[in-house]
Amino acid sequence: MDQNEALAILKPHLKQERYDHTVRVMETAIELAEMYEVDEKKAEIAAIFHDYAKYRPTEEMKKWITSTYLPKDLLHYHHELWHGPVGALLVEREVGITDVEILDSIHYHTTGRTHMTPLDKVIFLADYIEPGRRFPGIDDVREAAQVSLDYGCWMATKNTIAFLMSKNQPIYPDTFYAYNALTKSKNNKQEGK
Amino acid sequence: MDQNEALAILKPHLKQERYDHTVRVMETAIELAEMYEVDEKKAEIAAIFHDYAKYRPTEEMKKWITSTYLPKDLLHYHHELWHGPVGALLVEREVGITDVEILDSIHYHTTGRTHMTPLDKVIFLADYIEPGRRFPGIDDVREAAQVSLDYGCWMATKNTIAFLMSKNQPIYPDTFYAYNALTKSKNNKQEGK
Repeated sequence: MDQNEALAILKPHLKQERYDHTVRVMETAIELAEMYEVDEKKAEIAAIFHDYAKYRPTEEMKKWITSTYLPKDLLHYHHELWHGPVGALLVEREVGITDVEILDSIHYHTTGRTHMTPLDKVIFLADYIEPGRRFPGIDDVREAAQVSLDYGCWMATKNTIAFLMSKNQPIYPDTFYAYNALTKSKNNKQEGK
Repeated sequence: MDQNEALAILKPHLKQERYDHTVRVMETAIELAEMYEVDEKKAEIAAIFHDYAKYRPTEEMKKWITSTYLPKDLLHYHHELWHGPVGALLVEREVGITDVEILDSIHYHTTGRTHMTPLDKVIFLADYIEPGRRFPGIDDVREAAQVSLDYGCWMATKNTIAFLMSKNQPIYPDTFYAYNALTKSKNNKQEGK
């Protein structure tokens, strides 16, 4: 599927501002993939479809979580977290994408997870730092993304947890597992392990 | 077991400064237990023995974790976290305390856990706020402890996570689960659920 074809399939599912965000995520993901030697084509397609389910009604997303293999603990966390897992499911069912790496990177693009693949990291980070993003700490994450994929993702998970705690919100377990895994990997590298 | 007897059993296992800390934790735990209608006698005994294993050699603690029911994932985190679980084990084996509530509150006094009992909360919080403690955020936690046991523990877990992240350290999952459970309980109460 080429870029124009994928964008044409996506467009009716998003509002204009979310579509514009998606195009910026796509561009950022391709840059990161090139920089860190990750499959650029997969990065492009995953980025295009990462927010595919963003505007599905909450009730519909709840039904998909309840009636499929998706983790049920999502229902105990904010519905803002649901569009990633539900998106991966619907991109497979409705768009016909079957590449597991692409589907996983869509699934985990908001939360991260323990063992993030390079493609997971590219999509997670591109979504975080695309040039339209404005929030506290974003410049540190942008700088970290230039150092390494792991360092950028580590900074992003750390920033996410700090942000959620400042809002007195719970943190989805996958996010702190991602933070822990990236922290250990970073500390091990510093200690030369 | 009365207070003097328990303190006499404990004393040879700790350095003087840690013994003094323990006496302050005991006094704070009894105050909190009285304030929040938790069993004062259990709070007293649990507080006295909460740091029982503090000075066991790292290698000995590792052996206890490896050779018993204790969770193996502890070995992937800082050994500072080991003395709680190992302490609960040794207080049962060496001191002969069999009360599960007391043993659990010793086990989880550093990390917290998802479903903390009232006694868990008293010991966790007393250890955090005893008058000898000095670190950033401590006064907020002390104030929160006067509002409710849950609010104090919530503030303490939040402060712990922020502190560990500021030191670029991983966070033991039980601590995150404690934070999430206390956050949800707090938010539900505010929403009148």
